Formats: sequence, structure tokens, C-alpha cells
Amino acid sequence: MCTTITIEEAAAWLKEHDNFLILTHRRPDGDTIGCAGALAEGLQAAGKTAFVLHNPEITPRYSRFVAAYMAPEEYKQDHVIVVDTASYSQFPRNGEAFIGAVSLCIDHHPSNPRYAERNCLVDAASCGEIVYELLLRLSGGINAKAAESLYAAVSTDTGCFAFANTTADAHRVAAELIEAGAPHQKLNKLLFRTKTRSRILIESMINSGLEFYFDGAVAISSITREMMEAAGANEDDVDDIASLPGSVDGVLAGITIRELTSKEDCKVSVRTTQSINANQICARFGGGGHALAAGFSLEKTIPEIKKELLEALKEFFVTL
Amino acid sequence: MCTTITIEEAAAWLKEHDNFLILTHRRPDGDTIGCAGALAEGLQAAGKTAFVLHNPEITPRYSRFVAAYMAPEEYKQDHVIVVDTASYSQFPRNGEAFIGAVSLCIDHHPSNPRYAERNCLVDAASCGEIVYELLLRLSGGINAKAAESLYAAVSTDTGCFAFANTTADAHRVAAELIEAGAPHQKLNKLLFRTKTRSRILIESMINSGLEFYFDGAVAISSITREMMEAAGANEDDVDDIASLPGSVDGVLAGITIRELTSKEDCKVSVRTTQSINANQICARFGGGGHALAAGFSLEKTIPEIKKELLEALKEFFVTL
Repeated sequence: MCTTITIEEAAAWLKEHDNFLILTHRRPDGDTIGCAGALAEGLQAAGKTAFVLHNPEITPRYSRFVAAYMAPEEYKQDHVIVVDTASYSQFPRNGEAFIGAVSLCIDHHPSNPRYAERNCLVDAASCGEIVYELLLRLSGGINAKAAESLYAAVSTDTGCFAFANTTADAHRVAAELIEAGAPHQKLNKLLFRTKTRSRILIESMINSGLEFYFDGAVAISSITREMMEAAGANEDDVDDIASLPGSVDGVLAGITIRELTSKEDCKVSVRTTQSINANQICARFGGGGHALAAGFSLEKTIPEIKKELLEALKEFFVTL
Repeated sequence: MCTTITIEEAAAWLKEHDNFLILTHRRPDGDTIGCAGALAEGLQAAGKTAFVLHNPEITPRYSRFVAAYMAPEEYKQDHVIVVDTASYSQFPRNGEAFIGAVSLCIDHHPSNPRYAERNCLVDAASCGEIVYELLLRLSGGINAKAAESLYAAVSTDTGCFAFANTTADAHRVAAELIEAGAPHQKLNKLLFRTKTRSRILIESMINSGLEFYFDGAVAISSITREMMEAAGANEDDVDDIASLPGSVDGVLAGITIRELTSKEDCKVSVRTTQSINANQICARFGGGGHALAAGFSLEKTIPEIKKELLEALKEFFVTL
């Protein structure tokens, strides 16, 4: 257990084995879904049997990237592969049965505790870049379908190359994916340049309710269940909504508090710029993530969480 | 006159000459300004004398990229270089004196009629990519300052790699610029991920008041003087605001009606997708522009204009 392996070793292991089931993380984003779709496509193209476990929380926005690789109900895999998933707590409900039984984990989260038998952990902007290098080593190249899914992975996790995690490597992989046939124009329009009416409405509500603290260095947005209902918004409509408060001029930490199943079940997302460690802030509340993007969940109301957060933030921001 | 030259030939010509003045185009964007700044930096670093002609229409957003290279008033150049400028009509007012006297034009616009003595015209997403290749051939590499300006050029002209013109080459150059020291995190934040509080507020007001017609194919936004005042918004805050209604899923024509000096002095902007001709719509009201972006002015109130517009649009859209 707990072996860290290189991309070359992961490719070699995949070549030697067969009958894979690929898991994505809870509240799946473009990176985990794009990686799963591309890996399934790449493995199938290499003559292997590989399917993706249905993720009950998947949204229409991303389902297109894995629809062709869904595991049949009777499918019995020999090996479970998990992509872009930092910890067991991120396993989807129907994937919890595989806790302790993961053959290979492919991930880019620094906080990953190496929970799988083989852990291919690489520091990268997106997990998509790792899967790309893996597929190159598996088959010497990738086809257009895999390129499409991986472009979705790399581009969404870097906010279309605008987020602070974007690297030269992310751009280089994007260039190679476009050359491999990724329909980047169609995907960019779909993923970054079109908003639903509900998205427009929920954004308006969030932005008009933004609260600023610490001389404008902290912006807090609140998303209630009532707001979601009034805007007719679904999960797709609030994809990456946590980046909104951080887009205001002068804001160093953008915080989004969102009611989930009830008024006392909230998810908090923290997005920061270089000088503030989001992971440290969220660790105070039992959460975590990356230095610039982290989160946590609390069974408290928005006003309660706001109060506790502002108290905790005093250690990170000087009150003027 | 009218010689087309390669990037290699342009580099060779620059090596053999000296005392350059660099011109940018009217209503300067990130590409023309970034190219001018990078070219001046690269030429100066190569031991040449090179300055940028002040562009009277430059905005604070882009002035940082050329501020260090402004031509002194008494400067007498031997050679004029024009970057990212498709025609003489795009020359800034104070650059019109150089019409017919341009030694080198570096441009990526297919419509460029080769108006300079030497025309280095390359099909590329941004002119910045051409200047990058040129500086590599001039000096074997580029410094961090030139990389910063060129990253601004490439990223703004591709809408941070989301516009349809983005290519694998644009990504590849971006990767090399990041490796050459372009502060892409800072620039992305500045150019793509920062909005003023007033911008956020006016956007919220506009979006929450969006009206849809013709089964969602037409979206109309209204901007009153009162809204501008309530949001504390200035002209910079409403830059490109006419693109908002067109970003809604399913909208073929996004229309923005804005009060200017009074309630009866309105400017109308029409943005369409391929299937609808904005120029034809605006021609009905004495205005005009391009096929996908046009406008007109009317001395009527917003409700009056809306009524007339919806009547005129019946010819373009089928009422369901």
C-alpha cells in the first residue's frame, strides 16, 4: 500500500492489466470527468476493457464526456482507478464500496494522502495533464475523442487558462490536444462563453449581495436555497460560481457560502491570491484543498458561518 | 513598395538598421500595444534606438506596457514600424503624417493591403505571436519585459484563449512566454479576472433586468442614467457592456439600449451571431456597423425605442 509511482510506471502497470473501473470525485467537475472519459477512451483504444462508474451528481454540462463509457450494471472489474480525487471523503456515494480497494490513483492534489495501492501523483495545474502524459506513454498518442475530454479537463481546471494555477505545461498540453483534434472552439463556447438565463440571474443576485470586509480585501457571497429557486438554477448553473467574489478589484480572498440540503448544511469555498493561503483558512474548519482554492462544509447557517469566518480571518488580515 | 517579407527577413532588416519609431493602431487594444512595447524592448535590448509613438486613445489598462518606451518629443527616427494595423484608416491621428512612409509593417490581419515598404504578414491569432518569432530571430531569445508585453498581446487578442481564433500556436507561444518570465498570473488577474465594484453592480442591474423576446432569440438590456449613478459607474466600467445580452444561452441578437445625456438621448448596440445581420437591423434606424456588431442613436426614450425595435425585428425573427 501507499506506493508512489511515476507516470511511466502507471502506464506500464496499465499495459500489464485489464478490466478497469474508473471513479470520479463527488460533485464532479470538468477535470475529473474529462480525465475519466479520456482514460476510458484511451484504454479501450489500447484494447483494454475499461468503464466509468456512474457519478450520481454529474451534470449535463459534463455528462457528454463520459456517456459512451458508462459501466454496465453487471460489470465486474479487476481493478479500480480513481482520477482527480484527493481523499476518500471525495468518493461519490456509490463509490464508497471501493474505499481501501483502489489499485491506482491518478491525482494532482498536493494534499492527497496516497490512499491507493499505487499513487501516481504529479504537481500539475490539472489532472488532465497527467492523464495526457499517461496515455502518450500507453499508446504513443491519443485520438480526437480522448483529446476532447482532456481539453475539457485542462481548460476547466485552469478557468480557460486564466486561473493562477495555469502553467506553461498546461498551455503546451492544450496546444497538443488541439493538434490531436480537440474541438476547442466548440468547447470554449460551451464551457466558457455561454450562460443560461438562470446563471445570469443567480450571478446578479450574488453580485448585488456581495459583502466586503477588511478594507475590501475580503468579499463574501452567500447563496441560499431560496436564491437558487428564484433563479431556477441547477448545479450546472452554479458551476465555478465560487470564483465570482474574487473577481472584484482589490479582493485578496473571495469566499462563497452556499446552503446545500438545508439552511444548516453549508459548503464554503475560499479562493485567494498568492499572499493568502486558502488551504490554511479552510483547515481551521476541518477542510482543505489547494493554496489558492480550498473549501469546507459546516452544519451551521450562513450568518453563523460568516461570523466564525470573519473571526478566523483576523489572523490572516490586519483590521484597518 | 509592397514587398512581402518573411519573419527571418524582417529580423535581418532590423539588425541592419537603427533609430526606429513604432506606431500602434487607433482605439489601441492589448495586441497592438503589447507588440509595440515588446518590439521597443527587444530592439533596445539588442542595442538599437527604438521608441513608441504616443497613442492619444490609449487607456490606463494598456499604457503600462509602453510607458517606458515613449518617443521623446524631439526624437527623429530613420524608420517607421507599424504593428497590428490593417490599413491607413487605422492609423492614429498623430500617426497620419507617416502614411506612405512606413518602412516595416508587422501584422496578422488577412485584409492588410501591404501598405508598407516591407510587409511582414503572417496568419496568426495575434500579432504578438509574430513579434515573438521576430524577436527570437533578432536576439535568440527575449527578456521578461518583452515576454510580459507579448503575453498581454496574445492573451487579449484570443480572449484569454477562449475566442474562436485561438490556435495551438497561440498556446505554444503563451507557454514559451510564461517560461521567459511573463507574469501571467498577475496579467490574467488584471486583464481578465478583475472587475470594479461598480462594474459588478451595473452588470447585476443590467442582467437582472434583461428582457427576452422571440422565444428567447432576442435579449434586450437597458442602461439608464439612474442605474449608472446608483452603481457609481464611469465609461471604463461599461466597456464592452454591449456583449452581455448576447452571452445568454440561445440568444441570437443581444441589444443594449443606453441613455446618454438625457432620457431622450439613447445609444443602441446590437450584437448578433452568424445568422442575424446586425448591420441590417441598425440600418433601419439610420445606423450601421459590421454584420455581427452595429449600432445607432435615437433621440427617444428607452420604452419608445424598445417598441420600435421589436416592431422592426419582426422582419428578422419569426414570432412563435
